[in-house]
Amino acid sequence: MTKIPGAILNVVCPDRPGLVAMFANFVHSNGGNILNAEHHRDDGSGLFVSRLDWTLEAFKLSRTQLEAEVAKIAHDCGGVFKLFYYPQQTKVAIFVSKQDHCLFDLLIRFESGELLGQVVCIFSNHPELDRVAKMFNIPFFFSPAPKGGKIQHETRAKEVVKAHGADLIVLAKYMQILSPDFLENGQQIINIHHSFLPAFPGAQPYHNAYKRGVKVIGATAHYVTAELDAGPIIEQDIIRIDHRFSVADMIREGRDIERVVLARAVRWHLERRVIVFENKTAIFA
Amino acid sequence: MTKIPGAILNVVCPDRPGLVAMFANFVHSNGGNILNAEHHRDDGSGLFVSRLDWTLEAFKLSRTQLEAEVAKIAHDCGGVFKLFYYPQQTKVAIFVSKQDHCLFDLLIRFESGELLGQVVCIFSNHPELDRVAKMFNIPFFFSPAPKGGKIQHETRAKEVVKAHGADLIVLAKYMQILSPDFLENGQQIINIHHSFLPAFPGAQPYHNAYKRGVKVIGATAHYVTAELDAGPIIEQDIIRIDHRFSVADMIREGRDIERVVLARAVRWHLERRVIVFENKTAIFA
Amino acid sequence: MTKIPGAILNVVCPDRPGLVAMFANFVHSNGGNILNAEHHRDDGSGLFVSRLDWTLEAFKLSRTQLEAEVAKIAHDCGGVFKLFYYPQQTKVAIFVSKQDHCLFDLLIRFESGELLGQVVCIFSNHPELDRVAKMFNIPFFFSPAPKGGKIQHETRAKEVVKAHGADLIVLAKYMQILSPDFLENGQQIINIHHSFLPAFPGAQPYHNAYKRGVKVIGATAHYVTAELDAGPIIEQDIIRIDHRFSVADMIREGRDIERVVLARAVRWHLERRVIVFENKTAIFA
Amino acid sequence: MTKIPGAILNVVCPDRPGLVAMFANFVHSNGGNILNAEHHRDDGSGLFVSRLDWTLEAFKLSRTQLEAEVAKIAHDCGGVFKLFYYPQQTKVAIFVSKQDHCLFDLLIRFESGELLGQVVCIFSNHPELDRVAKMFNIPFFFSPAPKGGKIQHETRAKEVVKAHGADLIVLAKYMQILSPDFLENGQQIINIHHSFLPAFPGAQPYHNAYKRGVKVIGATAHYVTAELDAGPIIEQDIIRIDHRFSVADMIREGRDIERVVLARAVRWHLERRVIVFENKTAIFA
Repeated sequence: MTKIPGAILNVVCPDRPGLVAMFANFVHSNGGNILNAEHHRDDGSGLFVSRLDWTLEAFKLSRTQLEAEVAKIAHDCGGVFKLFYYPQQTKVAIFVSKQDHCLFDLLIRFESGELLGQVVCIFSNHPELDRVAKMFNIPFFFSPAPKGGKIQHETRAKEVVKAHGADLIVLAKYMQILSPDFLENGQQIINIHHSFLPAFPGAQPYHNAYKRGVKVIGATAHYVTAELDAGPIIEQDIIRIDHRFSVADMIREGRDIERVVLARAVRWHLERRVIVFENKTAIFA
Repeated sequence: MTKIPGAILNVVCPDRPGLVAMFANFVHSNGGNILNAEHHRDDGSGLFVSRLDWTLEAFKLSRTQLEAEVAKIAHDCGGVFKLFYYPQQTKVAIFVSKQDHCLFDLLIRFESGELLGQVVCIFSNHPELDRVAKMFNIPFFFSPAPKGGKIQHETRAKEVVKAHGADLIVLAKYMQILSPDFLENGQQIINIHHSFLPAFPGAQPYHNAYKRGVKVIGATAHYVTAELDAGPIIEQDIIRIDHRFSVADMIREGRDIERVVLARAVRWHLERRVIVFENKTAIFA
Repeated sequence: MTKIPGAILNVVCPDRPGLVAMFANFVHSNGGNILNAEHHRDDGSGLFVSRLDWTLEAFKLSRTQLEAEVAKIAHDCGGVFKLFYYPQQTKVAIFVSKQDHCLFDLLIRFESGELLGQVVCIFSNHPELDRVAKMFNIPFFFSPAPKGGKIQHETRAKEVVKAHGADLIVLAKYMQILSPDFLENGQQIINIHHSFLPAFPGAQPYHNAYKRGVKVIGATAHYVTAELDAGPIIEQDIIRIDHRFSVADMIREGRDIERVVLARAVRWHLERRVIVFENKTAIFA
Repeated sequence: MTKIPGAILNVVCPDRPGLVAMFANFVHSNGGNILNAEHHRDDGSGLFVSRLDWTLEAFKLSRTQLEAEVAKIAHDCGGVFKLFYYPQQTKVAIFVSKQDHCLFDLLIRFESGELLGQVVCIFSNHPELDRVAKMFNIPFFFSPAPKGGKIQHETRAKEVVKAHGADLIVLAKYMQILSPDFLENGQQIINIHHSFLPAFPGAQPYHNAYKRGVKVIGATAHYVTAELDAGPIIEQDIIRIDHRFSVADMIREGRDIERVVLARAVRWHLERRVIVFENKTAIFA
């Protein structure tokens, strides 16, 4: 991402001839310089999925004018259009439980500028990772989630997220299942699951992988939806294992792929490279 | 594998101190030179799994004596011991349907000596691959498998396998589900499934992978058991895909991993490197 | 690739604002439907690299008109433009020595239609692979290449290539170094080298990899240029090895990546997905 | 690694029949329970390379007796034998320059107990990473390395290493070349190099990879020897790239493999799983 001000348009609409030319013309004729333009036609659904990234330096339309024009085109095309500006600073809330590897990894990447955004708070159902939050000077909020206490716990989570204005919630080994009610709260939520979904959904995937005797284990970063572990997959990766791997070995090696898979998903999301359609994702990376 | 005559012992028995020393002594004190000795303790089950490979050149025991000694040790250890001799030529039957990529691949590898064994027959529920069988001068048997005709089809399969003395059946894209009755026939059976099991079992895994929007696809070679796609996994591998892959692209790329995964599994099996325990495999490769 | 007639344009020219819009407009305003449009800006050189693929069904320009227009744009842009039509059948000559794995692999893929083209002849400095050529009914030409006999050997090679009208030469484990003179003959030449270049150039890469104790081995498909093993890299892949791998094991495992890497490179070339700039390649796959 | 006291023996000696049995007997007859025994015969050199790991709970020999016996066997075999005890705490010095990703990664892994050892000091030719050292409460020592000041810089490094009793030095993106004099200091030194050696040795491997147009980039962890980037390779890994990767993208993605490759090498070293022979390594992982 350059530091010059620019705009990114994410498009999902029914495909028809001439869309590529239309979008390219729209940007160019208004003085924008296209830095990246990627298009995809999904043959299954007949959808056109596109990401345009252009500079706003010499752009002739104001933000208001641009948004009005985009709304008009979206209406004509019968699609979903999303417009973003940069440089931007998405506000991110990280939810954790006791494991620290993904939290550490994200905080280091945000601090170094590798991830475009700002971690505004860390929320947990356990108190332990306050230690890590303090190392990076991020506000930490602990709210227990005992049996029967989910409503109170999630109410607190909503307050914390709202108070800090977070637009994105990253579940960095947060070992609770969010209720459908929480999901209607408006923020996008990215989760890291420690298996190559759809294999081994739910709890204890490494134990189940050990039992099944698989030769690869993996991790999956996905958007959270009401159906458990069934949201749009953003990124997956795997490592090879063999019979010598105990569950503890899998957990240790798994941490390395969980970290990388989650970090990639968060980076692509923050750079508006992930476009969701038909419960799948196109990644224009 | 060397060309010097030798023996391979595959062991699964309850673990106890001293087993490694006992096996090493047994071979060494009888004049065998251990070429490879690999051991594994499965912590979940407490089982000791081992593969010993030694030369018979200066071995003091006859085959009869060796087999008697091994049977005695197996009884003492309460385990399953299997003894193989080499050079050997396992007789292999290949079952196919219409797709030729795995068949070609196996025939080329057998012909070049990469796979230790002899393809004695090819059996199919379709006539098309007679063409490939002819290129390599292998007897080809076609028996249709129409709805309601499975019993007749499998009866013919059993006859062909028996007539050619095959010890191993390789399902190289044979798109039929073998009945439990057939499985009791005695030969070991290796199948290639075109997904990273346990994801996408059953039919049309690539279509289901497309629909789910996964970022990796894979292939699994496994021993066939009565429960569909649930036998011990021998080998798996994957390739990364993205939203640009159609089902046809997946099928094309998938062929490359199916070939390699099946070939590795067959090679390890023929070299007696695969030991099954607890519906899993140890691969001493 | 669809079966509808279409055109593919490969472009390399200095980048400037508006190129994406210009190309999209040119195709769309003349009645073409863009199936794929991919662009790349190489920051090191400031070059714009692009591949457009559009249908010719309703295209208003004749081939002659189209070629004239493209020549005009190329002149204006100061770039190299290449225009291809499909369906097409590139004529391919395969050069081999004694190893058959890449030859078998390519012939199977061409026969199945996975590779868009036609193998018109096989040329070798050894007689052995006539056997394989016969299995697929391809003309085979043997010309020895003894010390001091390179000129005669290459003269024969040129005759064979010319007589069969081949546009592409694939060196499928052809263990001779082609002279600069041969390279000026006009055909594009793709070679498979059995290491991850630039590591282990020249002869015996697996022996050198064994000696160096690397933990990965690889294969590289590249266009042949006058400087040995230094042409534009089209594709590379690797596999992990460990200390247990002998040179023979590396050679066996290496065959699997050589096959796949070469096949991918040939496929992308034949589908005009490879664009060379600055001795590198952009792959619009 | 278990928490029960145990011993690990690393062996390199000329191979001869009966070695496996001899070692197994030696341990078993003295009351040790072998937890792991792995052997490798290097065909190139005829060397036998072995790692034995056994419990000392019921072992009948004292450490003094054990060491005397091992010395005797080593003398008989004409080999190099190394004996280690556990639980142990290897003292580790980490050398860095300005980049923090490998440092952070190692400190997190040591803190979590994933790496068996204790970081006793951090030494740098730049002051910046004192910040990270403070987060983990590790003593940090800064000594500049200006042109002409290498001797003074290395003298300080030796003092710091000696004062903290470090047995292992990890170069975690320390961008200085250590002099032969420093290398004779006695500690083992592990370095992370940001390419898949032997490709792109020396400075700026990512720039050179960009220029060459490779399709994979990698990282290599190796023991440091007097010849630059030519010491025994412990671990390597790679990631695929394509023409869209700028040098900055390579550097970012490269950090992820550098981290993991270095961490694996350090872990295997600390668990005495790395045995060096013929400037190569056997990894008994």
